Amino acid sequence: MTTVTNGVNVQALLDAREVLKGAPEAAQFTWRASASWQHGVHSQIKVQSFFGLGEEREHKAESVFEADHPEVFAATDNGITPIEYLIVGLASCLTAGVASVAENRGIQLRSVTSTVEGEHDIRGILGADSDVRNGFNDIKVTFHIDADASREDIEALVAQSQKRSAVFDALTNPTNVTVEVA
Amino acid sequence: MTTVTNGVNVQALLDAREVLKGAPEAAQFTWRASASWQHGVHSQIKVQSFFGLGEEREHKAESVFEADHPEVFAATDNGITPIEYLIVGLASCLTAGVASVAENRGIQLRSVTSTVEGEHDIRGILGADSDVRNGFNDIKVTFHIDADASREDIEALVAQSQKRSAVFDALTNPTNVTVEVA
Repeated sequence: MTTVTNGVNVQALLDAREVLKGAPEAAQFTWRASASWQHGVHSQIKVQSFFGLGEEREHKAESVFEADHPEVFAATDNGITPIEYLIVGLASCLTAGVASVAENRGIQLRSVTSTVEGEHDIRGILGADSDVRNGFNDIKVTFHIDADASREDIEALVAQSQKRSAVFDALTNPTNVTVEVA
Repeated sequence: MTTVTNGVNVQALLDAREVLKGAPEAAQFTWRASASWQHGVHSQIKVQSFFGLGEEREHKAESVFEADHPEVFAATDNGITPIEYLIVGLASCLTAGVASVAENRGIQLRSVTSTVEGEHDIRGILGADSDVRNGFNDIKVTFHIDADASREDIEALVAQSQKRSAVFDALTNPTNVTVEVA
């Protein structure tokens, strides 16, 4: 294997894999977000704390996000729409995977960019047609990758990233979601 | 119906519903995000343009997001993790729904906050156990709502929001995702 410098500490991840095989309770993470309604359909969402490796932890900094609807929905467009956050997550998850797999395979990356497009028939959320689902009809991700590797090897990187992606799984397979009033 | 001031233009949404019933092609939206790998598992994602109501459109401003992994994953923690973006989207989508349904039902909201917790067994993404999925095991959303309404009416608001939520649907039902190298 060539020594590459994509910046991913693959050895730490391989070590974590071995350790967590024997300590499944440490592998249980809880990710958290807190939302606060502002006005109209505008809300503000904060993320900082999470639980993992057996204890409460925090990101280095609190991240604050705004979500709203665009003016074409008669809203104030103070931020992207909630559904767009899903494709932000998908793009970044697959990109992190490409970098990690490349590092593990000794492939030097020069640039990785991607575009995600989510097709959405808004008749679902408006209640205009009960046969139309509320979410995306489908999502397409297109990668442009400049790397020291053949096209075949680059396609294999992307395929492996997809196979290990948390967000790809969350969007392509159902998750149980419970919603309660405190 | 009481006149309420939650700030949601419900009449515009009801009008859009009627118009789009007879113009399904106008209801086809495309949401877009572009990601650019930075270093390690850190990427930057930009969102501004989208397609809808038959033409290319833009949010008022470009939104720029950072995604990374935390230091406990031997990464640089320059932003929240990709999977956390999914719960940001879920929290904001359900909150927008609560405000919209409340407006439609004549319920004045005073405050709406929520916490979303996503349980995640990271043995999946690490490849430590092939029986563990990559995404969330389950997600729990807890709302705190102060409104001029009974507890029963508040619970009905949340239930209706869930029923019409784009992100709730996207997480609880599968979506086809295609990933390609250009």
